[in-house]
Amino acid sequence: MLILVGLGLQDHKDLTFRGYEVIKSADKVYLDLYTSRFSSSVEQLEEFLGRQIKKIARSDLEERSKKLIEEAKEQNIVILVPGDPTIATTHISLVLEAKKLGVKTRIINNASIINAVCSLTGLQNYRFGKSATISWQRSRAFIDTIKANLSIDAHTLLFLDLNPPMTIREAVEKILSLERDFADHFAVGIARAGGEDALVKCERLKKLLNFDFGEPLHSLVILARRIHFMEYECLRSFAFAPEELKEWVI
Amino acid sequence: MLILVGLGLQDHKDLTFRGYEVIKSADKVYLDLYTSRFSSSVEQLEEFLGRQIKKIARSDLEERSKKLIEEAKEQNIVILVPGDPTIATTHISLVLEAKKLGVKTRIINNASIINAVCSLTGLQNYRFGKSATISWQRSRAFIDTIKANLSIDAHTLLFLDLNPPMTIREAVEKILSLERDFADHFAVGIARAGGEDALVKCERLKKLLNFDFGEPLHSLVILARRIHFMEYECLRSFAFAPEELKEWVI
Repeated sequence: MLILVGLGLQDHKDLTFRGYEVIKSADKVYLDLYTSRFSSSVEQLEEFLGRQIKKIARSDLEERSKKLIEEAKEQNIVILVPGDPTIATTHISLVLEAKKLGVKTRIINNASIINAVCSLTGLQNYRFGKSATISWQRSRAFIDTIKANLSIDAHTLLFLDLNPPMTIREAVEKILSLERDFADHFAVGIARAGGEDALVKCERLKKLLNFDFGEPLHSLVILARRIHFMEYECLRSFAFAPEELKEWVI
Repeated sequence: MLILVGLGLQDHKDLTFRGYEVIKSADKVYLDLYTSRFSSSVEQLEEFLGRQIKKIARSDLEERSKKLIEEAKEQNIVILVPGDPTIATTHISLVLEAKKLGVKTRIINNASIINAVCSLTGLQNYRFGKSATISWQRSRAFIDTIKANLSIDAHTLLFLDLNPPMTIREAVEKILSLERDFADHFAVGIARAGGEDALVKCERLKKLLNFDFGEPLHSLVILARRIHFMEYECLRSFAFAPEELKEWVI
């Protein structure tokens, strides 16, 4: 069986008891650090789990996925994934391929960045539209996603490129270089979501440029043009939003 | 301190080690079953945690929230929440109120129905638009959400009323009574997400009416009018989608 186990947001303590049980009885345990990051080192994880863990490369999950699936025909293979295994297309694709080859699969869910963003900002989950990634490659697809979401009055969660990690400042520069009109739009920068030292700040995009969010990982929410009063109150309380955000309250 | 701990999707084994630690050292532990459901009984949870747990009513979280917050001024109060504590507005509202009264707060995230839906259907997380609830009360707000999402080519996750639990058949009847045009639209019914006996079926809405999903809880995804080829393949493999869904592939 091929089993994907979500590790959650921060470190090994975010593992679930169900995940722990599955790992303990697995034949082999791999760790995917390509699609996300994790605060515990491989050694800390190995000590906590009492198991050897092998780091896995992107190519093992993509071009060389057949080899992994082949192993999972005979053995219980666990792949540990920071956050939740269902966020990255790579993992869903692997599960699909395994099923096609007649290999049983199982996913142990955990919290992802999406859960953390709602906790940290107080923004309401049901008001988020499609999410998008801002990558280092030249692409303006994420601008179309922001605009589509604005057209239906929805927030946009933007994931920032991980390889190498993009900062909120760099992301905002990229947005403004493509759409100068967004300079006065309100957004929320989120640094180290899930960590003890998470930092959240709501401001107009042009002002976020000068805000020091510290170390990655960073992500960014572009607010809908209208927000609920409770969202406003949460952003004031959790994210140091300026009072002028009040103009956007429905 | 007021601490909300997510219990995850199925039973006590979905608790994280971080959540367990926090519960063990808490002064009081409450359990909120109003906003969601959970497979473990209070007794099973008590045995697993080695702690007494007090069930809490909706009114304790809403009109009588001051009492809880008052307690949290002097003691570490944990509220256990099935799924993730950031999905229901009630919990965010409680955290906001506590902060206003100078009480420290903490949220321990866990997987929610949103994570489970992506694992079970293979639908891509970033293609979901706003979610909505179909409630027993007469309201057509969810129809507007579906239409808004369709206008930007996004899927819609629909939560079904919990009090009492609405079935997929009842939800589809409600949709079709308000919008006959949706009869041929493809959707995915999901029963008991997170459970061992989860059941997923993709079909045209009119055909989902006659499909037996078994016991609640149920939820429903209204598909965007265009889907990715990998989503199609996943829906074929995970959700027994009919081949004619292929017409919708981009």
